[in-house]
Amino acid sequence: MTTKQLIEQIHIKKSFLCIGLDVDLTKIPQHLLDTEDPIFEFNKAIIDATHHLCVSYKPNTAFYEAYGLKGWRSLEKTIQYLNTNYPEIYTIADAKRGDIGNTSTMYAKAFLEDLAFDSVTVAPYMGKDSVEPFLAFKDKHTIMLALTSNKGAFDFQTLETNGQELYKQVLETSKSWENSENLMYVVGATKAEYFKEIRKIVPNSFLLVPGVGAQGGNLQDVCKYGMAENVGLLINSSRGIIYAGNDENFAQASAVKAKELQGQMEEILK
Amino acid sequence: MTTKQLIEQIHIKKSFLCIGLDVDLTKIPQHLLDTEDPIFEFNKAIIDATHHLCVSYKPNTAFYEAYGLKGWRSLEKTIQYLNTNYPEIYTIADAKRGDIGNTSTMYAKAFLEDLAFDSVTVAPYMGKDSVEPFLAFKDKHTIMLALTSNKGAFDFQTLETNGQELYKQVLETSKSWENSENLMYVVGATKAEYFKEIRKIVPNSFLLVPGVGAQGGNLQDVCKYGMAENVGLLINSSRGIIYAGNDENFAQASAVKAKELQGQMEEILK
Repeated sequence: MTTKQLIEQIHIKKSFLCIGLDVDLTKIPQHLLDTEDPIFEFNKAIIDATHHLCVSYKPNTAFYEAYGLKGWRSLEKTIQYLNTNYPEIYTIADAKRGDIGNTSTMYAKAFLEDLAFDSVTVAPYMGKDSVEPFLAFKDKHTIMLALTSNKGAFDFQTLETNGQELYKQVLETSKSWENSENLMYVVGATKAEYFKEIRKIVPNSFLLVPGVGAQGGNLQDVCKYGMAENVGLLINSSRGIIYAGNDENFAQASAVKAKELQGQMEEILK
Repeated sequence: MTTKQLIEQIHIKKSFLCIGLDVDLTKIPQHLLDTEDPIFEFNKAIIDATHHLCVSYKPNTAFYEAYGLKGWRSLEKTIQYLNTNYPEIYTIADAKRGDIGNTSTMYAKAFLEDLAFDSVTVAPYMGKDSVEPFLAFKDKHTIMLALTSNKGAFDFQTLETNGQELYKQVLETSKSWENSENLMYVVGATKAEYFKEIRKIVPNSFLLVPGVGAQGGNLQDVCKYGMAENVGLLINSSRGIIYAGNDENFAQASAVKAKELQGQMEEILK
């Protein structure tokens, strides 16, 4: 999906919501555990109930790898289900990969070509040649960690380098990489005041924003400082939506939570 | 495996060689492609032919994920084969993972518990709470990227922060994390002169050193500056060993290459 198509979807749906499909078998409704593929059945129900309220879904690969082969099969089925039934949805493999060039190419192929996600998250520590193999894929995005939503973000990301914090240096440097127009960035919602600074460096780039909800971030603050002319924001909520209910009506409960956020987004977009 | 047991193995085998199992189906001998699981058959042959010459194997997960479900099955079979037949081997999942706390726990469980690797590589960018979930596993190691062997290492890892390069800050900071005795570090062989500085910060930590061979690093230089009293080095070679031959005798060709490196290591250990 191109950036232009994503922006169109945002305006059609009056939403820039991304729903994180971080499925933990200990947290999903009991009755699903009797099905052949509980993770997929859970995702399918959530997707069917919420697809009109969001523009994107983001499975975090850790939650699938934790279940080995079965987990990978659930991930494959989930992305196939999305691509077949809801091609208008923007899909993100939250994998936070990154390795030396030829190895990053293998990861890029796995997520962007074989699984056919629209985008994949990557870590910046290994620099340009660890990220450019992802950027080479046409009409796909690479979403690089800049400032994350966890406490550990302050261990290295905010250290001063060359007179500015490391995460700003990461943003600045990455703008010169080949196909950098395919870059988006992860910026945690728990640090809304940082968005002002970030927008000085990447005024129009899309930012994937985790941390609204369970992690304490505030939607209005993020939009106040982070919204660009082209919207430029994908706000992710995972646990706050997908675990809203725990009985047979769990998907409807998720839709109610997603609708709340979509409603706030519609107001903001006016 | 404990650090003590690893050191014992190094002295028994007179080797601190790690063989990288980065299997690319376009590079393995043609006749294996007719088998049911070419990746596993390739690994099995390499392992059977070289296990007495090395102390460790390191599959890079990218090369398995690139083949989807089949690839994961090959990875599972490879680690099971190692754990069953060669329990004295130290196994490394080269995955370069890292995420917010509860998500890192899922990755740690996947690699250290379910697949039962002895260790897993992680990226430091997200800081303490993204790495500590890995460190919590008893008698397992977490191998964190410090200074990598690729060109992109100079994009961020060598930036000045607090008067020292970022990778030194990463080493320094990580020493205060909980269970930091379970940490090892990735340091590329292409920068042998850096080892002197690194040993000032982590005098006894084990360093996993990629970049000898295909990437141009020199074994003698690395050992001169990087070796600790407890040896403290695992030298990885991937392509230089596993693709040494391309016909029916490929595994023997790999053993010849592994024997060359082991011989040099035996000399150095004297």
